[in-house]
Amino acid sequence: MSAPNRNVLWGRALVDELVRGGVEHVVASPGSRSTPLVTAATEHDELTVYSVLDERSAAFFALGRARRTGEVTPLICTSGTAAANYHPAVIEADRGRVPLLLLTADRPPELHDSGANQTVDQEKLYGDAVRWYADLPEPEAEERKLRSLRTTAARALAAATGTPAGPVHLNCRFRKPLEPTPVTGDVPADLDPLAAVGRDGEQPFVRTTAGVPRLDRADVRPLVEALSVERGLIVAGPTDPPGVDPEAITALAHATGFPVVADPLSGLRFGGHTRVTTTVGGYDGYLDTRVTDDWPDPEVVVRVGASPTSKRLRQYLARTDARQFVVDPASGWREAAFRATDLVVADPSRLAARLAELVGGPDAPAWRERWAEAERVYRETVGDVTDDGAGGYFEGAVLADVADLAPEPSTLVVSNSNPVRDADRYAPPTAANYTVLGNRGASGIDGVVSTGLGAGSATTDHCTLVVGDLAYYHDGNGLLSALRCGVDATVVLINNDGGGIFHRLPIESFDPPFTESFKTPHGRSFEPTADLYDLTHVAVDGREAFRDAYADAVGRDGADVIEVRTDAEASQRTRERLVEATVEALVDGA
Amino acid sequence: MSAPNRNVLWGRALVDELVRGGVEHVVASPGSRSTPLVTAATEHDELTVYSVLDERSAAFFALGRARRTGEVTPLICTSGTAAANYHPAVIEADRGRVPLLLLTADRPPELHDSGANQTVDQEKLYGDAVRWYADLPEPEAEERKLRSLRTTAARALAAATGTPAGPVHLNCRFRKPLEPTPVTGDVPADLDPLAAVGRDGEQPFVRTTAGVPRLDRADVRPLVEALSVERGLIVAGPTDPPGVDPEAITALAHATGFPVVADPLSGLRFGGHTRVTTTVGGYDGYLDTRVTDDWPDPEVVVRVGASPTSKRLRQYLARTDARQFVVDPASGWREAAFRATDLVVADPSRLAARLAELVGGPDAPAWRERWAEAERVYRETVGDVTDDGAGGYFEGAVLADVADLAPEPSTLVVSNSNPVRDADRYAPPTAANYTVLGNRGASGIDGVVSTGLGAGSATTDHCTLVVGDLAYYHDGNGLLSALRCGVDATVVLINNDGGGIFHRLPIESFDPPFTESFKTPHGRSFEPTADLYDLTHVAVDGREAFRDAYADAVGRDGADVIEVRTDAEASQRTRERLVEATVEALVDGA
Repeated sequence: MSAPNRNVLWGRALVDELVRGGVEHVVASPGSRSTPLVTAATEHDELTVYSVLDERSAAFFALGRARRTGEVTPLICTSGTAAANYHPAVIEADRGRVPLLLLTADRPPELHDSGANQTVDQEKLYGDAVRWYADLPEPEAEERKLRSLRTTAARALAAATGTPAGPVHLNCRFRKPLEPTPVTGDVPADLDPLAAVGRDGEQPFVRTTAGVPRLDRADVRPLVEALSVERGLIVAGPTDPPGVDPEAITALAHATGFPVVADPLSGLRFGGHTRVTTTVGGYDGYLDTRVTDDWPDPEVVVRVGASPTSKRLRQYLARTDARQFVVDPASGWREAAFRATDLVVADPSRLAARLAELVGGPDAPAWRERWAEAERVYRETVGDVTDDGAGGYFEGAVLADVADLAPEPSTLVVSNSNPVRDADRYAPPTAANYTVLGNRGASGIDGVVSTGLGAGSATTDHCTLVVGDLAYYHDGNGLLSALRCGVDATVVLINNDGGGIFHRLPIESFDPPFTESFKTPHGRSFEPTADLYDLTHVAVDGREAFRDAYADAVGRDGADVIEVRTDAEASQRTRERLVEATVEALVDGA
Repeated sequence: MSAPNRNVLWGRALVDELVRGGVEHVVASPGSRSTPLVTAATEHDELTVYSVLDERSAAFFALGRARRTGEVTPLICTSGTAAANYHPAVIEADRGRVPLLLLTADRPPELHDSGANQTVDQEKLYGDAVRWYADLPEPEAEERKLRSLRTTAARALAAATGTPAGPVHLNCRFRKPLEPTPVTGDVPADLDPLAAVGRDGEQPFVRTTAGVPRLDRADVRPLVEALSVERGLIVAGPTDPPGVDPEAITALAHATGFPVVADPLSGLRFGGHTRVTTTVGGYDGYLDTRVTDDWPDPEVVVRVGASPTSKRLRQYLARTDARQFVVDPASGWREAAFRATDLVVADPSRLAARLAELVGGPDAPAWRERWAEAERVYRETVGDVTDDGAGGYFEGAVLADVADLAPEPSTLVVSNSNPVRDADRYAPPTAANYTVLGNRGASGIDGVVSTGLGAGSATTDHCTLVVGDLAYYHDGNGLLSALRCGVDATVVLINNDGGGIFHRLPIESFDPPFTESFKTPHGRSFEPTADLYDLTHVAVDGREAFRDAYADAVGRDGADVIEVRTDAEASQRTRERLVEATVEALVDGA
């Protein structure tokens, strides 16, 4: 490898090892100090570089890709506050166990705290939110340093995709020249080829082989026993990327006879397996004490994934006397009521497959039927109420309609705040080939547009993003990726003029400050943002108009925004009414 | 104080003490966990609450206010990634010594790392970038806790406005209920009034009296001696808020006979004192080696403020043999060439005033005249070249025109990247009553719109923000504050379709990757963003049109965007040509 200077050599070696380690895409934001990395990435034949101008959006774009694929899309930014703009996505990646690799350019050590421009303390910038932090040595065409760099690249990918997956931060210092200007003597002609160009045959410098936690046989036996009961539940919360294996969970559901309580982000709400298991999704509508007080408690609950989105489900689980197993391959604890009795450190899919072969409990069709019946009653009730009524188009119906109309295969990205909760309530389990994603690690409303477009960029699925107006506004900058990165997506923007979610909180009754400081109405229509980014925009305010617009949009190439005007308060009242009507139907029917 | 519950009591006590400590404005972003703080702020008669939806913009808005005033505008956000969105502004505040107070709501300790929603590790979230971090105790109507809270409020304000000023982070944990719902027994009726309602007569709980570093008489004598020479310079870099005292610096300039080399952000470029001192601002055009090789070196340089914006000035200072004094009240070091010989820990204004009374050097009109002559030649040359030429409207002329036409008094906020550098080069020292601000702490292009509008919200001056298209796009969300917070400002948007700054870097010669990964052209006109936020928008592409549009805009109420189309490459070539022409004129004339 003949490189014009040490920085070019260094940038190429790092990028080269990432590609050998499986990386095919990077997201870079413009800047000067990162020139050696960006240049190396751009010139690499096997790498696609997405250029995303706002680093906050860039990080969420990479996060969206990684959520969809489970693979790392490295990020490159310049020195200074640029790196701090990654922080929100880094926190989401930490909590959500999404692999990220942050390559932050930095200035040489002597410029720190010296008044030099764009020089800030980037060491451990993300605190404990990263799986691994390394401050790379100063680039030099020196054999051991280069071997260390190549080894570090492999370790970074391994750490980001380990158990649990998460963000990794490599701080990359460069001194000028940053561009490929020849510097005589900077790269010796006789540099060891292994250090300079890496291993033969495009092999990675270090190959990672990582196991996942697997229980000893003796430790499985008590689990089999505990699951060999009549009444149990498999509760699947939002899944860690790259997702749980539906076959394995289905096998366990069959073997135990337990219903699968499937969060919309669990990877189990949709798909062929729902045809052959009792998969429930309407729990937020019927797990009311007035209903469940008459139910026998489950004897056992197996929890996989993160804490479920539905508060009513969490409260139900907190008030049962069941033995509750938290299955977590990373030894994490994602059950904030502290009712669980057992932590099982194991890969949930593999464990489920293993248990399915061993469990042989008494079949209890009445228990499954109880859940199936509640689900049926709920779906009927919802169907009665979600047509356009006095309050206009119900926000929950938007999610039901998307789940009904999305083409297969689809990737659906649902924003925090109301959309994910409405997906939970109103998008019933079906056999559709859908992958549903959301940022439930930290559940922020930031970066949602970029997460959606990033996910869309990583798949040939049709991609739909359902987002409220505050989240859409917050990451409006993310829309530029639809244009610059050519992402095909349908953005369903539910515009209820402010924080509709606050209508579900008690602060609603205190006004002031409710309207000005919580609901925060802005009075905006977002058609101009579509103009800004050359997106097709259509505004609708009724169900039929939305269904038509959505069908049109999915049939078209390019990115579309369908702005749905709704009334936040009316929708909240409808949500409440649906619970009341469901409870009434179930209690009367009982 | 009868409060319905402990959280209300706690929120009121904290807000109350901040107000007693001098706070008159807070910036709050919508969220649920922060309800006790937002509610207390909203209900306080003496407090104005700015509601800013995007926390990144909110923090820069507060930073802009604090830059303008030197006073703290506290920020309130909810738990989770919201707080991480403050991080870029926190870093700028740290490096730029701007007081900020971050009140981040958090969940109770037992919910941490338990899978609870919107719960992330907020402890020491900003690392070493804050002057002080405190994790507040859990709210309770308990006397010592409340006294500690009131004391903490005073300490936080003192730390934020200390030497150096900077950000302070208070992490505020709350458990439900968050709204003013009555909780029986939560607040004892006989609670100690001092703890409950604070000191009598709106006095703060703790009053802070802080000194500034002041040299002993014996330590001043050697300084006086060092300054009693023929050739010296007073180099004033970007000032720390609330600014340096022009009278004091002028007195020192008079006493020593030294020119004042005044960065546009120094607080010394504009104002009545420029009539009576040799204040120079064109150095970036003439401090070329071809010119200065014929100059005698200065014998002494007194540096105040941060490192100057001009690279040519920094390089000049690095190659002189002068004794260089870095005067820094915070014992900081802001001179990255490491040529300075002396660190003087003292308040620069007070020290200047003191030295002015003691210094009595030999007057050296020739030295001053050399600088004044270079300045004259430079201004003539610039005047010849900055009329619309082949390359269209020169970006540098935009800054010259704003400095020429802005009404008095004006606050001018100039973005990083080219605008601040062009202000440095093309806005000559005048007696105008201008306050010029920029984010030169970390020199990011993020948050610039909000910084400008925040500064505008804090003054009755007319406010002009000059910003490039990347910075405008990056903080487009900040424009919402013009609408929601009713800030009157003229936004001059220099749209050269991407990162014009990169044309000044060597990477320009390497394409690819120059265009796609550095210049990053987006092809956008930003008229839609003005539509989105109800701003008056006008697009211009020539000098006369701009001058007319600017005069119109400053005469109007409300926020205006004047979008100026320029050619980045042509403007960069003009900048280079101006240096060449200046050097030629000076070398020929010598």
